[in-house]
Amino acid sequence: MKYTIFGESHGSAIGVVLEGVPAALTLDLEAVQAELDRRAPGKDPTATARKEADQVHVLSGLFEGKTTGAPLCMVIQNSGQHSTDYEALRWTPRPSHGDYAGFIASQGAQDYRGGGHFSGRLTAPLVAAGAVAKQILAQKDIWVGAHISAIYGILDRTMNDPEELKGLSGKTFPVLDDAKGEEMRQAILEAKAGEDSVGGSIECAVVGLPAGFGAPDFGRNVEGIFSQYLFAVPAVKAVCFGAGVGFSYMRGTEANDPFEVTGGGVRTKTNNAGGVNGGITNGMPVVFEVTLRPTPSIGLPQESFDLRTGEETEIEITGRHDPCIVPRAVPVIEAAAALAACEVLGL
Amino acid sequence: MKYTIFGESHGSAIGVVLEGVPAALTLDLEAVQAELDRRAPGKDPTATARKEADQVHVLSGLFEGKTTGAPLCMVIQNSGQHSTDYEALRWTPRPSHGDYAGFIASQGAQDYRGGGHFSGRLTAPLVAAGAVAKQILAQKDIWVGAHISAIYGILDRTMNDPEELKGLSGKTFPVLDDAKGEEMRQAILEAKAGEDSVGGSIECAVVGLPAGFGAPDFGRNVEGIFSQYLFAVPAVKAVCFGAGVGFSYMRGTEANDPFEVTGGGVRTKTNNAGGVNGGITNGMPVVFEVTLRPTPSIGLPQESFDLRTGEETEIEITGRHDPCIVPRAVPVIEAAAALAACEVLGL
Amino acid sequence: MKYTIFGESHGSAIGVVLEGVPAALTLDLEAVQAELDRRAPGKDPTATARKEADQVHVLSGLFEGKTTGAPLCMVIQNSGQHSTDYEALRWTPRPSHGDYAGFIASQGAQDYRGGGHFSGRLTAPLVAAGAVAKQILAQKDIWVGAHISAIYGILDRTMNDPEELKGLSGKTFPVLDDAKGEEMRQAILEAKAGEDSVGGSIECAVVGLPAGFGAPDFGRNVEGIFSQYLFAVPAVKAVCFGAGVGFSYMRGTEANDPFEVTGGGVRTKTNNAGGVNGGITNGMPVVFEVTLRPTPSIGLPQESFDLRTGEETEIEITGRHDPCIVPRAVPVIEAAAALAACEVLGL
Amino acid sequence: MKYTIFGESHGSAIGVVLEGVPAALTLDLEAVQAELDRRAPGKDPTATARKEADQVHVLSGLFEGKTTGAPLCMVIQNSGQHSTDYEALRWTPRPSHGDYAGFIASQGAQDYRGGGHFSGRLTAPLVAAGAVAKQILAQKDIWVGAHISAIYGILDRTMNDPEELKGLSGKTFPVLDDAKGEEMRQAILEAKAGEDSVGGSIECAVVGLPAGFGAPDFGRNVEGIFSQYLFAVPAVKAVCFGAGVGFSYMRGTEANDPFEVTGGGVRTKTNNAGGVNGGITNGMPVVFEVTLRPTPSIGLPQESFDLRTGEETEIEITGRHDPCIVPRAVPVIEAAAALAACEVLGL
Repeated sequence: MKYTIFGESHGSAIGVVLEGVPAALTLDLEAVQAELDRRAPGKDPTATARKEADQVHVLSGLFEGKTTGAPLCMVIQNSGQHSTDYEALRWTPRPSHGDYAGFIASQGAQDYRGGGHFSGRLTAPLVAAGAVAKQILAQKDIWVGAHISAIYGILDRTMNDPEELKGLSGKTFPVLDDAKGEEMRQAILEAKAGEDSVGGSIECAVVGLPAGFGAPDFGRNVEGIFSQYLFAVPAVKAVCFGAGVGFSYMRGTEANDPFEVTGGGVRTKTNNAGGVNGGITNGMPVVFEVTLRPTPSIGLPQESFDLRTGEETEIEITGRHDPCIVPRAVPVIEAAAALAACEVLGL
Repeated sequence: MKYTIFGESHGSAIGVVLEGVPAALTLDLEAVQAELDRRAPGKDPTATARKEADQVHVLSGLFEGKTTGAPLCMVIQNSGQHSTDYEALRWTPRPSHGDYAGFIASQGAQDYRGGGHFSGRLTAPLVAAGAVAKQILAQKDIWVGAHISAIYGILDRTMNDPEELKGLSGKTFPVLDDAKGEEMRQAILEAKAGEDSVGGSIECAVVGLPAGFGAPDFGRNVEGIFSQYLFAVPAVKAVCFGAGVGFSYMRGTEANDPFEVTGGGVRTKTNNAGGVNGGITNGMPVVFEVTLRPTPSIGLPQESFDLRTGEETEIEITGRHDPCIVPRAVPVIEAAAALAACEVLGL
Repeated sequence: MKYTIFGESHGSAIGVVLEGVPAALTLDLEAVQAELDRRAPGKDPTATARKEADQVHVLSGLFEGKTTGAPLCMVIQNSGQHSTDYEALRWTPRPSHGDYAGFIASQGAQDYRGGGHFSGRLTAPLVAAGAVAKQILAQKDIWVGAHISAIYGILDRTMNDPEELKGLSGKTFPVLDDAKGEEMRQAILEAKAGEDSVGGSIECAVVGLPAGFGAPDFGRNVEGIFSQYLFAVPAVKAVCFGAGVGFSYMRGTEANDPFEVTGGGVRTKTNNAGGVNGGITNGMPVVFEVTLRPTPSIGLPQESFDLRTGEETEIEITGRHDPCIVPRAVPVIEAAAALAACEVLGL
Repeated sequence: MKYTIFGESHGSAIGVVLEGVPAALTLDLEAVQAELDRRAPGKDPTATARKEADQVHVLSGLFEGKTTGAPLCMVIQNSGQHSTDYEALRWTPRPSHGDYAGFIASQGAQDYRGGGHFSGRLTAPLVAAGAVAKQILAQKDIWVGAHISAIYGILDRTMNDPEELKGLSGKTFPVLDDAKGEEMRQAILEAKAGEDSVGGSIECAVVGLPAGFGAPDFGRNVEGIFSQYLFAVPAVKAVCFGAGVGFSYMRGTEANDPFEVTGGGVRTKTNNAGGVNGGITNGMPVVFEVTLRPTPSIGLPQESFDLRTGEETEIEITGRHDPCIVPRAVPVIEAAAALAACEVLGL
């Protein structure tokens, strides 16, 4: 299964084509829409005020409710664009956005309105594709869950067992410890009040992957496959499996996961490896944490320059932006993980 | 350019095939060998006592000193194997090694001797391939450098400028602050004395990549490309670009990199983005940090089980192992980065 | 550049996503539409009576008239479907159509209406993608031309020079010898009158490709690349380069192309190789011929069976079909060739 | 499974790396060697007098007689090279060889000795890889057979049933009608006597492929997959499935394959489609014919030019060459088909 996302923030529509979808899957379109609704803005004061219907429409690959195995194209019409918000910034790249790099890459031809193809809005089709992947995985009793693990240095409590993630998909602010969630929310609102933004992290688990998938080799190892899907999510700057960066503080005796044999078979007592050894699944949940940078769009004045004249200038970004994209990114990370898991399984 | 590594730790030879090598490059084989020598064990008391000649031999793709553009195959003969060291562990997988996952993946057919194809020894051909990539990059004034940024919680000093990495490749223990390096060394020797091991991190920079390469899309974004090469290095469990996990503690005002226009052109005052915005190079050095887990092979008793009977058992790993693989992994990470940079540039 | 076609004959829309389009190309949408019009039915008594507007609509990747480098999605709305024509044949696969193979592949879930995703109608988005490729090639003075070389054993005259193809794209029945074309037309009309169909061949040339592109290796050789694009066109069953099957009747002295050095540089006096030696372009036009099978949809009774009961049965296909798809396939083959040429050039 | 061939005709060794080999296959190395022996020269007066031991040596991926799933590297040492034969032709490209195209592609750096990486000798590792593929297919009761269908216009009799191919692999000159084979042999010897060469065709069948594999789409259709493997064989210039070019002479009533239901299930009475409809296997044998050009190396004088000065000159090729490569190419085509079949099946 391979996905291709197309569209721009202020174009007529955005969408995704999924190739290699297993045939004869009864697709639950309401479940696809429900995932999109989890990602949609406008539900929480911590999110952007931009309203988007984000109604998914299937163009191809589905017949009488079932996937045909032919490419599945899903489209979401755009609406609610305020293109004029962006006109002012056409020639002055916003710091830490893709504006400048994209200008060079496109030889000046990119759609600058609302980030164009670089927009976080393009994660909507990714969520749709991931919702299909989740349904494929569900047939094999594999599921994906996630929580906000940190925002601006405020950490959610430690996850003891991925099972704890099960109820979280219904929450608009999915954390294990709601008190910590409330602190995070305050941090976001404070940043918003100051026309600033904050970054954070998401911990995600894929539960039910059998042992023995993947390989140590380039292009086939599980961590490499997952990371390629995860770094394709805008704003993700770090991908850490299991104990992740923490391994740098550990001894082998602390880091190694001892085996135990239970009624249910072989497992490890701890899961510091995040479910992967030697690039291959070991039967434990695949657990990883991604870090997302603070939204680069902030209201405060910033230093830029004019792409035409090369002269330095100061810019102020107006318009509606998420002061923190982490809460809305939770279903996006889950979607990327679901697609990665399908590739690992050869689906 | 695409690389494929073959071989097993205790087979007759290991090697790599590089496809798509640019033709007519005068290949400096001594420089390739020098990179292999950087990685070779036996030079420092912190490394394994295993001796390996690691003499590279070019089988194809090179004629009269130049690359022909045909697949370049480089082979390293194995020697100094003590296969009997491993016989005892054939049916009792070592915790946090690829043994168990590999056993399931191969239906019991893997070469268990010395980790077989999972062995860290397979990073030697990767270094050879990377050495070729470095020479290709050098023609475009692009270079790669790295330092040990942390071992067992002891951090090297902060890198102010990637230029500081330039002299480090000649060091057996490449750090910016040698006093910190000595502390790290002590931590490794202590772990070794206790039949234990420690983990650590490596910070790496690719300097000279022009702006405008990459794309935000899956399969083409710079972070995704790099991460796939980096996670293919055994023991790497985290890949973080620029401020990495630190973004989770930052505000947009802290994280954003302001533009400035200098005589040399456009650059950013800080490089928290690690040289990549929107999945595209922005002209600043691509900087990232990887974390490597502690060597899973430790002498202390560990809990395992018998693959044949399913009964729990305790194992003790004998033989010669690196108590910390981080120092020897420095040229390996550089090699992976060089290959990734070639892919980013479409070489 | 990579294309993905989606859609079904009787769905709401069909389309294509082109990834990796060079940025900043001023796209001539009228030229794209003109290519689609060449392929459209209803212009000649030899073609199906089905009317299709085939109006192309760009959803993404184009901004202010220029390609942005982001995925270019082009969509064509469906109309004029007579789905009821097909209902009768749902459970009785049409001989030599994809019905049966598709039924097995999709576990019975394929869209059976009008061939669904297997329909020749899906060549419309291919033509649109090829039209983009042609504009990219034109910037490098490379062009693609083709003629009907045979229909039902009636051969067009031999092409002496690919330059002869230049004027043909304006013809609804593109042949070098119009008298031969008239004979072919009669053969088609006779087949049509008998509720039968006929097959034929198309010869195509890509002119202007520089020498030195490609490789002898799997996945990179020019003939292999072209063939993959050409066999993706429905009904193509043979792909022959240069003298093609004729090599089987030749001696080396007849087959070899002698070199000559002219004012314009090195060329070969003949082009039996079809512009490719050792899998690499040699600077001569890449010339190949494809053979397309007779339309499997014929009105005469045919032997089939019931997919549900396994019982043999006779079917009669009603509805509107091309008695020969070769004339309308000419722009399709050109499109496939243009896309292949872009891949060969690494565009 | 993906294969990469490396080596040059006059280098130290040639070989192949097979990635993605299914694990735990008991590999019959004698059967691999037997396939190489079928291809080896020196067994028949119609072939080159060059002697090559072609002894295969497995470097990796095999342990205790079984595949481990890690990359399988097989190497064949070179011997018997007469490099001086080629020195004279270094700067005067042989017509219709890859010399000139390769010179441009490699910027003058290719190994010119004996064709270097372009040599037909590189088909030896392909045969070795194909021999592994055949053993994988055999586990699923799929086999591959082939015969020489034409040489210099002399046609073998029509194959009525692919089962007829079963006994042919033991023959040095595999034809269905030995009298026709003798005629072909005479044509080759006559060409040889005249310092000329002849071309020919090979018909091949893959028997036992189940229905339902493949897709109509680019990159996934069965004919496209097969053709990519087949055109990677040097000298192949045409690939035709089923009735192939003959479709151009047929009506739908002649070309269509009627269904019939037998005790063994659904099949078609004829197999003009060559086992593929809509890009998907239909359960009938996949049958195709490839045409190979006459050996471009002939003793007669030919027109060339000097790569350094650009001046026209006449060359005479000395050394030992096959006056017809078709007989020795039979196991090569089978090997390519076996590898293609594995890809079609997702192995």
